Amino acid sequence: MTSDFAETKKLFHLPEGVTYLDGNSLGPLPKAALARMERCMAQKWGEMVITGWNRAGWMAQPSALGDRLGWLIGAQPGHVVLGDTLSIKVYQALAAALDLVPDRRVILTDSGNFPTDIYMAEGLIKMLGRGHELRVVAPEDVADNVTDDVAVLMLTEVDYRTGRKHDMAALTKAAHEAGALTLWDLAHSAGALPVDVAGCGADFAVGCTYKYLNAGPGAPAFIYVAPRHIDSCKPALSGWLGHEAPFAFDLDYRPGTGIERMRVGTPPVLQMAALDAALDIWDEVDMQDVRRASIALTEQFIAGVEAACPMLTLASPRDADGRGSQVSFRFAEGYAAMQACIARNVIGDFRAPDIMRFGFTPLFIDAADVDKAIAVIADVMTNRLWDDQTYKTKAAVT
Amino acid sequence: MTSDFAETKKLFHLPEGVTYLDGNSLGPLPKAALARMERCMAQKWGEMVITGWNRAGWMAQPSALGDRLGWLIGAQPGHVVLGDTLSIKVYQALAAALDLVPDRRVILTDSGNFPTDIYMAEGLIKMLGRGHELRVVAPEDVADNVTDDVAVLMLTEVDYRTGRKHDMAALTKAAHEAGALTLWDLAHSAGALPVDVAGCGADFAVGCTYKYLNAGPGAPAFIYVAPRHIDSCKPALSGWLGHEAPFAFDLDYRPGTGIERMRVGTPPVLQMAALDAALDIWDEVDMQDVRRASIALTEQFIAGVEAACPMLTLASPRDADGRGSQVSFRFAEGYAAMQACIARNVIGDFRAPDIMRFGFTPLFIDAADVDKAIAVIADVMTNRLWDDQTYKTKAAVT
Repeated sequence: MTSDFAETKKLFHLPEGVTYLDGNSLGPLPKAALARMERCMAQKWGEMVITGWNRAGWMAQPSALGDRLGWLIGAQPGHVVLGDTLSIKVYQALAAALDLVPDRRVILTDSGNFPTDIYMAEGLIKMLGRGHELRVVAPEDVADNVTDDVAVLMLTEVDYRTGRKHDMAALTKAAHEAGALTLWDLAHSAGALPVDVAGCGADFAVGCTYKYLNAGPGAPAFIYVAPRHIDSCKPALSGWLGHEAPFAFDLDYRPGTGIERMRVGTPPVLQMAALDAALDIWDEVDMQDVRRASIALTEQFIAGVEAACPMLTLASPRDADGRGSQVSFRFAEGYAAMQACIARNVIGDFRAPDIMRFGFTPLFIDAADVDKAIAVIADVMTNRLWDDQTYKTKAAVT
Repeated sequence: MTSDFAETKKLFHLPEGVTYLDGNSLGPLPKAALARMERCMAQKWGEMVITGWNRAGWMAQPSALGDRLGWLIGAQPGHVVLGDTLSIKVYQALAAALDLVPDRRVILTDSGNFPTDIYMAEGLIKMLGRGHELRVVAPEDVADNVTDDVAVLMLTEVDYRTGRKHDMAALTKAAHEAGALTLWDLAHSAGALPVDVAGCGADFAVGCTYKYLNAGPGAPAFIYVAPRHIDSCKPALSGWLGHEAPFAFDLDYRPGTGIERMRVGTPPVLQMAALDAALDIWDEVDMQDVRRASIALTEQFIAGVEAACPMLTLASPRDADGRGSQVSFRFAEGYAAMQACIARNVIGDFRAPDIMRFGFTPLFIDAADVDKAIAVIADVMTNRLWDDQTYKTKAAVT
């Protein structure tokens, strides 16, 4: 398989004149999603109504789409299922993981984890009421803190602010050697870089589909459970569609077979139609090609921005192997600077307190886009919007 | 406001020749949803991309739609929010309710509750590990079991199999007198009959929007929390969008203001576009008119079916005040009989072990439809598909 990104770029609708460097937050519209949705609504919902659950395959779709998506994270078919939001999937995975390590009380995570992962863990700890501790360390200190009291190592592989990438294989190995399980959040990994949950021996993984996978705002999340755990995995959110026989309407919950037990309620059929169209594009690319192109784009961007904008400080790892598919710079007036970039049609985003974040998505961003973005950023940063000495915003921009 | 159901019927796409008596399971497609979705995808997702979260109002939509929907269940604006699935909303509401009654351990429910409510409660009880008991009684025995050890009375107002309707006001009053809180599942109530959560003093309520509200397969659920509880209500599923300041990306969870705290993760924007179109239709009707029309249709149906099909036994309350907007009949070979009805374009559904269930939705079902349905059911039941003595299926139909 060879990936021709000039061809994949044509498959997306991008707003005229916009350089979209925020596909790591919300991917753009795959053109085919429009007709796919229209068909789902008019021909399936409209014509089949209730019978669509079987005739249109809606009921089976969370697993079918999980199978289609699995290769992007190194999972074999049968081990990934779609549904809910990433927050809910974190809760499910963490609850199941803690249950598998009943004699330990520490959840180790880092301050670069996305806050909702941490919030959901806090909520779960309160619910359990068994004295679990959420231990939050700096990203670079994780390896040294994988001690033998850790129940679960819960990390987001790629830091949402800096793009710093953990060594998933090494940390998973270290966790296992310490007797802990791992829960990897792949929100900024799936579709951004090659992931191999099976090869790394990851125990649980979760992620979303609206960032690099381009499935649209509010697209469902996914969950992976290692085959060695799934049969002993107890669903905390024991919804009817995770039941062994949902349509028997028994009053006792019995977990379903394999990954099906991680389903909860009625799946979001319309969102899944968009996801289905988005995954068609991924069928045509090789993740190694995506990674090579991503590194080329990020290297080009870093070199160009650093040359033109000495007032910006690289917040991402300089070594391409150490980062995901985004580049972040620190700048005290980053919020205003990003607003100015957006006003000039270069869309990235800002993360408090001072991070200007740019995502690089080879499926629709190419070297010419990067050149354009560098030129705009250079213009924004040097055209006297800032005081030359302090780099504080001048009144004019506020 | 007067409701002209001949007009509302034109607003739905119904499959040619089909009499659709399953809107209590999945409502049909509102025609306007197609253009609404196309606009959401092409003009908002496509053109605004990430900026749609603010510019298109996506981030505020769970509350805005909650406000639009609130009147259907008797809630004032600000007390209902959309998101997730009904299973998740049951879990949230029950966890919050139990937390408000810390000295009691009994969750009282009935065997007519939808199984996922019961499953989610079972899962929650295991998570809490504090000896809570799920006490399941027969629907008609609920009132006698509201004892002073009950923490939460958790009921679905209208039984999904029989259509039997609980007296929400009386049971809520009884629960409060016994020192218990109430959690009402309105899956078969919202859009089916007038509901008054505020007037009844209900503490928590949840429901779905893909049945009578016609928002499409996988449409989001809703949750209501009584204003007197919301400030002391602790979200168990403490996701980032329920945080006081989601975009501050703090590492500590602080619940948001009011009902916002019951949000969890990223809202399903595409599903919400369909819901928005579905709610437009509800803006034009009066629930008292809907209820009057619903009762007329169900009375017509019961009389017609009973006259033509003596082998069917009414499973729904005969008194219209005692049922929701569905009618169920028991028949030993109900599964095969319903398949035969569906083959003849009268769509209802079957619920094990022997329930043939028909939903009556005045927005798009009228008296002529009911006559057609009666004729088809009579034909199915009497045209020798069944052995005349035993009413067992003959080989030909299997």
